[in-house]
Amino acid sequence: MRISELSRESGVPIATIKFYLREGLLPPGTRTARNQAVYDASHLRRLRLVRVLVEVGGLSLVAVRRVVEALADDSTPLPELLGAAHYALDAGPVTRGPQLEATTREVASWITARGWKVSEAAPAMTALAGALLALRQLGWSVGPEVFERYATHADDLAGDEIVYVANAPTREAALESTVVGTVVFERALVALRRLAQEHHSRARLHDY
Amino acid sequence: MRISELSRESGVPIATIKFYLREGLLPPGTRTARNQAVYDASHLRRLRLVRVLVEVGGLSLVAVRRVVEALADDSTPLPELLGAAHYALDAGPVTRGPQLEATTREVASWITARGWKVSEAAPAMTALAGALLALRQLGWSVGPEVFERYATHADDLAGDEIVYVANAPTREAALESTVVGTVVFERALVALRRLAQEHHSRARLHDY
Repeated sequence: MRISELSRESGVPIATIKFYLREGLLPPGTRTARNQAVYDASHLRRLRLVRVLVEVGGLSLVAVRRVVEALADDSTPLPELLGAAHYALDAGPVTRGPQLEATTREVASWITARGWKVSEAAPAMTALAGALLALRQLGWSVGPEVFERYATHADDLAGDEIVYVANAPTREAALESTVVGTVVFERALVALRRLAQEHHSRARLHDY
Repeated sequence: MRISELSRESGVPIATIKFYLREGLLPPGTRTARNQAVYDASHLRRLRLVRVLVEVGGLSLVAVRRVVEALADDSTPLPELLGAAHYALDAGPVTRGPQLEATTREVASWITARGWKVSEAAPAMTALAGALLALRQLGWSVGPEVFERYATHADDLAGDEIVYVANAPTREAALESTVVGTVVFERALVALRRLAQEHHSRARLHDY
């Protein structure tokens, strides 16, 4: 297909596609004339992936290039490939401070004791430490155990999500599933929790 | 206590406290001399609340003032007070578009059918519709039911969270619990889900 058709199919403007081609985020098409090239289904898939990474995942172009390079290198094992995408995703703002490092170590030991094998350097570990620190600054005398129920729910959700990723037909599809699973369903979960809070609040606090 | 002690106790700089006083977010202290006033425990509590609303909740000053005014008016029923805070919280970015309204209605009927009584105008409803729209733009032919498991987990978490708020000793404490519960635990939940994904991913995809 021509670039105009690729644009129509993907909903991505031609100028953006040309930018992705120049930046190496999208492999070049097959040249058919001096100023013309044709693209195939693999370009459409890649374009969709880049769009998910940028628009849904909020990845910077540098981060997208790193992920795309890991994807192109067949020797990158799938867990590492997914890890590259996962770690590049924005984990939200964290108020840095002298206590954050100590709190991160505290949170990491709790996570390890719960039986999860994850890196202490995971951005989500810092984000979790930031949440604990916020509670303490508000005067709550609590440890990481305050998050226990949340960890149980998260564990239950993630177990099924990974099965979905593991069943993806290609590495590219697995990568897309990871980003979509992490970002889109995360937004859905957050929104649903707020709606559930509104529902329970109306039901329980009515005669307060 | 003097303003310097209020600053030390709360960790909020004197200049910021003066700004909150000028903006009416903090009630004035008791004047003891032409340029001096003293503050009590109620000021410390209010300062802590404003700080949570601004720093943790990401509320604008206008939104904080609205919440503080609702709090000062004893005739505001608690569910309305909590609702004012809840709705003022940032629900994250949503890509607006012509399809968003129709998707919001679709999502709202599903929520109603699940038995939750919430307003269709809730910011979280729009956020949920945005998530569904993102999936469809990625080629997933799915309805709101794709979020069913997430709704179940959200419902279970929120039920307990509201009991906690309902047991708060004062209206101010209930309001603080709502904001902390919504924002801080939301961050913790999101972080824990990502950590759980990393753990399950390493465990399951190892021999992929």
